[in-house]
Amino acid sequence: MSGNDGIAEPIIALDAMGGDNAPKEIVQGAVQAARELGLRIALVGRAETIEALIRRSGPPPHAISIVPAADIIEMDDHPAQAARNKKDSSIAVALRLLKRGEAQAFVSAGNTGAVMAASIMYLGRIRGIERPSLVGLLPLSGKLTVLLDVGANADAKPEYLLQWAQMAAAYKQRVWQTPNPTVALLNIGEEAEKGSQLSQEAYTLLAESGLNFIGNVEGRDLPFGKADIIVTDGFSGNVAVKTMEGTADYVMREIRSAIRSRPWYLAAGAALLPAFAHVRKKVDYREYGAGPLLGVNGLVFIGHGRSDARAIVSALRVARDAVRSQMLEAIREVAPARVRAAGSGLDPASQ
Amino acid sequence: MSGNDGIAEPIIALDAMGGDNAPKEIVQGAVQAARELGLRIALVGRAETIEALIRRSGPPPHAISIVPAADIIEMDDHPAQAARNKKDSSIAVALRLLKRGEAQAFVSAGNTGAVMAASIMYLGRIRGIERPSLVGLLPLSGKLTVLLDVGANADAKPEYLLQWAQMAAAYKQRVWQTPNPTVALLNIGEEAEKGSQLSQEAYTLLAESGLNFIGNVEGRDLPFGKADIIVTDGFSGNVAVKTMEGTADYVMREIRSAIRSRPWYLAAGAALLPAFAHVRKKVDYREYGAGPLLGVNGLVFIGHGRSDARAIVSALRVARDAVRSQMLEAIREVAPARVRAAGSGLDPASQ
Repeated sequence: MSGNDGIAEPIIALDAMGGDNAPKEIVQGAVQAARELGLRIALVGRAETIEALIRRSGPPPHAISIVPAADIIEMDDHPAQAARNKKDSSIAVALRLLKRGEAQAFVSAGNTGAVMAASIMYLGRIRGIERPSLVGLLPLSGKLTVLLDVGANADAKPEYLLQWAQMAAAYKQRVWQTPNPTVALLNIGEEAEKGSQLSQEAYTLLAESGLNFIGNVEGRDLPFGKADIIVTDGFSGNVAVKTMEGTADYVMREIRSAIRSRPWYLAAGAALLPAFAHVRKKVDYREYGAGPLLGVNGLVFIGHGRSDARAIVSALRVARDAVRSQMLEAIREVAPARVRAAGSGLDPASQ
Repeated sequence: MSGNDGIAEPIIALDAMGGDNAPKEIVQGAVQAARELGLRIALVGRAETIEALIRRSGPPPHAISIVPAADIIEMDDHPAQAARNKKDSSIAVALRLLKRGEAQAFVSAGNTGAVMAASIMYLGRIRGIERPSLVGLLPLSGKLTVLLDVGANADAKPEYLLQWAQMAAAYKQRVWQTPNPTVALLNIGEEAEKGSQLSQEAYTLLAESGLNFIGNVEGRDLPFGKADIIVTDGFSGNVAVKTMEGTADYVMREIRSAIRSRPWYLAAGAALLPAFAHVRKKVDYREYGAGPLLGVNGLVFIGHGRSDARAIVSALRVARDAVRSQMLEAIREVAPARVRAAGSGLDPASQ
């Protein structure tokens, strides 16, 4: 499980078969990351397919190894069932590499639910962490806001939100070098007493936590970088990130179709293509790669299903930075304090 | 409480003092609606202020009357407290007009929470309806999708969601002439078994309801008109509408700033202004005015705080259509079936 405090370049296990653009874009991203950033990557999946794709892109980089996995978890497989039943999937094989310390982090753009379920199954939770949480990246307004949970826990308790904020603070500090990151609660009003029972109780816990808590933010604040970390339950967090994505898509499409609606707009539209591309890039998750699954006993990063080679390069770089900055150790430090705070007399030797 | 099945043009009570642009834009909207659509409007608020504004816009239309109200509920007043304490607010006075049958519908762009609280206080709930619900309008993709609840109930039960869907179906049929409207559940995945405990149980109720239920939709579907009615709890519904608004704002701002970033983009940007205006109009709630508060014993429409004269005209027209189409009666028909379905032996004379 250790090995990530060594000086040698860490090995990142990459799910070659996961994502809408797998395996082609995934393998291409791996080759780029190995060539350009010198990363060491274990590509996990159908060996012949991966080899053929690597060969097509020129001389194979030394830093890439291939770990065969016969099975594939499809994007529309039932997550929990696929995690349980497909023991030879690229996801399962990669997680066992991580568990044995043969890789120090895992990146997948595959079936999100299956990666979450398999990660918990193969790696287990960090002792004292109640529920692992998936981080979503909101790379807007020139800074990175992280939103969690974005779907690992459709039902949540106030204590979970506190732990998620604490873990996210460790991640934001280590990987993104944000000192004393600001934390906000996603809510339906600005005042402390607003919201659901969950959000009201979470507000109190966050206010007393010692985190740099700045209070509530609302849906309309999400794109504007008002906090480094925004915490909410996995239902509304999932609704929020998908709504942002859908709305940004919608507006860009409408603009394209408005420009195409009149012949005399076309020249002006063509002149502005670089400006539109600039905006598109700002609303594009691919710049930051993948969000971590916080709270499992290993570094797992889950990318967008639509990840292309560029997104994979970013995700691999982020995973490498997480290993180098000892993010997992920082997150482990979050947990024991909670166990003590809860005054639990339980044997701390779980997991 | 009746009077809305008469042939005479109904009277719409309008909160002249509510909203970021009150009273100017509100009064201007009333004058326009009276002149252009022949609506009868009772403007409620500070009489001298309203009179002065009407005079400024030309000869006062006969169809406008002024009902004085000394107090104002500010946009940042505490909703429940203001509803309770400010008995002479324009909101309270207007709701009493409605209660006495001197107006047949009420429109406000004021403090949403206060309008909701005061409406329940002065009008009461419709017998058999468990919780009133606020409807949000998603006027995108050329059709109107309604989303509810958008903030009246941060915590919800599966039965509430069913009733909200039933009431919204009555509203969509009567006011928007949508025959057999499609109903979807906002969820975090497409499959029936996805989501929170609430959404799983609501799915079952909706599937068995006899409504035209088409299953789950996700956040990214919201702008694309996949259903006539989308139902969810008031927390995630509020997050969703505000996230849409914030994201659309963000993208349009980024485009403007990208165009301004290079001098040679400016001419092309200017040529495309009408195209941008067209898109802006599509992502603009103002076209449809205001969403109803369903389940209270009267027709209450709550507009966006930023409503301008045009939004007020739309809201008044929608309110008039609701009276004419006997929407309230249609919604009352939703409720008793529920009371029977629950097998309740309770005295039906609640209210």
